[in-house]
Amino acid sequence: MWRIRIGDISVANLQPLMQSVTCVDIMNFDVHNERQRAEEVQQADLVISLLPAAFHIVVAQECLKQNKSLITASYVTPAFKALHQEAKEKNLTILMESGLDPGIDHMSAMAVIQHIKNAGGNITSFKSFTGGLVAPESDTNPWQYKFTWNPRNVVLAGQGTAKYINNGAYKYIPYHQLFKRTDEFFVEGYGHFEGYANRDSLSYREPYGLANIPTMLRGTLRRPGYCAAWDVFVQLGLTDDSYTLEDAENMTHRSFIEAFLPSATMEGQSLMERLAAYAGIPADGTIMEKITWLGLFEEKPIEMTGATPAQVLEKILKDKWTLSPGDKDMIVMQHLFEYEQDGKKRVISSTLVTLGDDEIHTAMAKTVGLPVGILAKLLLQGRINRRGVVIPIYPELYEPVLDELKQYGIDFVETDRVLQE
Amino acid sequence: MWRIRIGDISVANLQPLMQSVTCVDIMNFDVHNERQRAEEVQQADLVISLLPAAFHIVVAQECLKQNKSLITASYVTPAFKALHQEAKEKNLTILMESGLDPGIDHMSAMAVIQHIKNAGGNITSFKSFTGGLVAPESDTNPWQYKFTWNPRNVVLAGQGTAKYINNGAYKYIPYHQLFKRTDEFFVEGYGHFEGYANRDSLSYREPYGLANIPTMLRGTLRRPGYCAAWDVFVQLGLTDDSYTLEDAENMTHRSFIEAFLPSATMEGQSLMERLAAYAGIPADGTIMEKITWLGLFEEKPIEMTGATPAQVLEKILKDKWTLSPGDKDMIVMQHLFEYEQDGKKRVISSTLVTLGDDEIHTAMAKTVGLPVGILAKLLLQGRINRRGVVIPIYPELYEPVLDELKQYGIDFVETDRVLQE
Repeated sequence: MWRIRIGDISVANLQPLMQSVTCVDIMNFDVHNERQRAEEVQQADLVISLLPAAFHIVVAQECLKQNKSLITASYVTPAFKALHQEAKEKNLTILMESGLDPGIDHMSAMAVIQHIKNAGGNITSFKSFTGGLVAPESDTNPWQYKFTWNPRNVVLAGQGTAKYINNGAYKYIPYHQLFKRTDEFFVEGYGHFEGYANRDSLSYREPYGLANIPTMLRGTLRRPGYCAAWDVFVQLGLTDDSYTLEDAENMTHRSFIEAFLPSATMEGQSLMERLAAYAGIPADGTIMEKITWLGLFEEKPIEMTGATPAQVLEKILKDKWTLSPGDKDMIVMQHLFEYEQDGKKRVISSTLVTLGDDEIHTAMAKTVGLPVGILAKLLLQGRINRRGVVIPIYPELYEPVLDELKQYGIDFVETDRVLQE
Repeated sequence: MWRIRIGDISVANLQPLMQSVTCVDIMNFDVHNERQRAEEVQQADLVISLLPAAFHIVVAQECLKQNKSLITASYVTPAFKALHQEAKEKNLTILMESGLDPGIDHMSAMAVIQHIKNAGGNITSFKSFTGGLVAPESDTNPWQYKFTWNPRNVVLAGQGTAKYINNGAYKYIPYHQLFKRTDEFFVEGYGHFEGYANRDSLSYREPYGLANIPTMLRGTLRRPGYCAAWDVFVQLGLTDDSYTLEDAENMTHRSFIEAFLPSATMEGQSLMERLAAYAGIPADGTIMEKITWLGLFEEKPIEMTGATPAQVLEKILKDKWTLSPGDKDMIVMQHLFEYEQDGKKRVISSTLVTLGDDEIHTAMAKTVGLPVGILAKLLLQGRINRRGVVIPIYPELYEPVLDELKQYGIDFVETDRVLQE
């Protein structure tokens, strides 16, 4: 029988959800409590860390000390790369990037890449985009977006420079251009989406076995129009998390916007008109409709002290973008492969759409949690032989996971067509 | 008799300049050489550090250890603030911000502020802008700009967020808007200038005794049109110093620009036309003239490896913006004060223009070096009694310096007029 111990900084929220589950113990757990950390790792056969990403490393160090394997859904950082050799020598597996994105994206892409290569195809372009959105029946606001993941990460998304390669040429998109340079996507039955580039589309060329691919781009999906409206916030500087506003405690939504606009030079212009002129958008279009809907032109106090612009924006968005009871979220992932086979140019699209059940049992929770759970089972059953710091790009990992995910309705729809003869 | 020892990492460039000067010894000096650092500080009565700003702190620590006073032309950093108490207790003066900007700007502003306050005036607005430019007779390129200071600092100028206060409202300008939001300035006899805001216009309100001033803005001067053209580089991302280009060794000027543009979608469009469309500028206007003049559309190899975009841009600019033999540079500083006195609104403008003699004896060298030298003399003569970490905002410091600077032709022209009765 499986026994699972779930630790959280406070289990109060967890208790009602776990009442009907018999194989689970829950406990208050503080990762910074050295003794508790050591005790909990000691009594585990396998450790799964779903902590905020910055805290994984102390868990990993404890696991190595006590010879336990570890699974996370987070990116392999340089600090984790440095643990690879030690983990390998101790015959342990630190399995990372095992959730949705990163996770299912790697697994499903590798399955298609392997399939094309086995058939003698040569991949010339790979684009992969994922979004955590809302299901059509819960799509009730002009942004067509609600938070289904850490709101702070949504506000800060894309900061830095996006790097990708297109027709053999490296391309760089600075943050302040990112939300202007979107690609279009279409999913049968679900309509149109737009995508902006992720920071790093280059570093997966090697692990995917696509070192010399001329075009590779990974990104994030939103509904059409989201990016143009979000770009207004970027242009203003509202997503900056690097400094503290001088007087957040006295600010309202209106004065927050005003602080990022040049002073008024004409009499009688409204704040909305001045914002429109500054951002170069129509004062009465769909972008302004989205901004207005968030309440940004209201005289509503911010009620924060010592806050960064990004923290103020996050608070304003949380009031509006939180899932309501019964709301269903939606995960959309689409891979587009162009390849040459037998002298023909072909295109494979591989698309996943997963809907949540309600605001608790979200598609985000399922698609992040299930692959982690399945991989944990495989590891404990001795069916994974990779050791060291590993991501799920090997058939022994992704084949059984993708198979089992189908039982939960997490399944890709694939089309393969000739682009040009 | 004054004796001066000048240390530099290599004195080869210094030797020809110093041949005719009798009171100066020169020596190869490495600030990272602990023993040499200790020995040189030990034999000095006063230490002047004109090293790159990051290295001042190790010099300061050595000075404190050996009970020597220190002068620099650089900003007081938090690390220096932390030395204030110790320096004060040891009866030492660490005199910072003693060059041009920061330096002469503080001194000349404080003289006017003191004058207005003494006459019972109430200052409502203070704007202060400084630029290191080229003299009209050496103004030979479409940017009306040449390097007279560290080129790297010019490329990275303004990164971060500019903060100021206008009519009592705090204002924030993100970097990607900075060169669009310029103010206009005029100097009798020298024509028009434009200015962009410095990062921090707020922290000098207290030291200047203007804690409650409704409007305060400090900034940098350029000739009109410079900022709009520089903004194209910012929009592209060419000034980014945070990451290394993948293939700088294979890049030409053209492919450097191409890397920051979206891929071509129309046939037959030139690189220049695509850049114009992306940046939203005319393909045949004065902005494009400036960019073309720099050679950015040439198939000229970059010849760098592992370079950041900012490093590549700096190399391209150095080829074009270096002073030629005989070139004269020009320092322009303008303070604009609005104040109320006897029920009238008045405006004082206080303006400095200083020209260089040639490409060696620059106005930049004079305006940075002379105040440092005069302050060193005053300190050694026992005429400065302030101890601890000090900036020249006190009459005992700025009055004699401003007086003596006049002998070198560094003198402000002041006008005072009624704005509104």
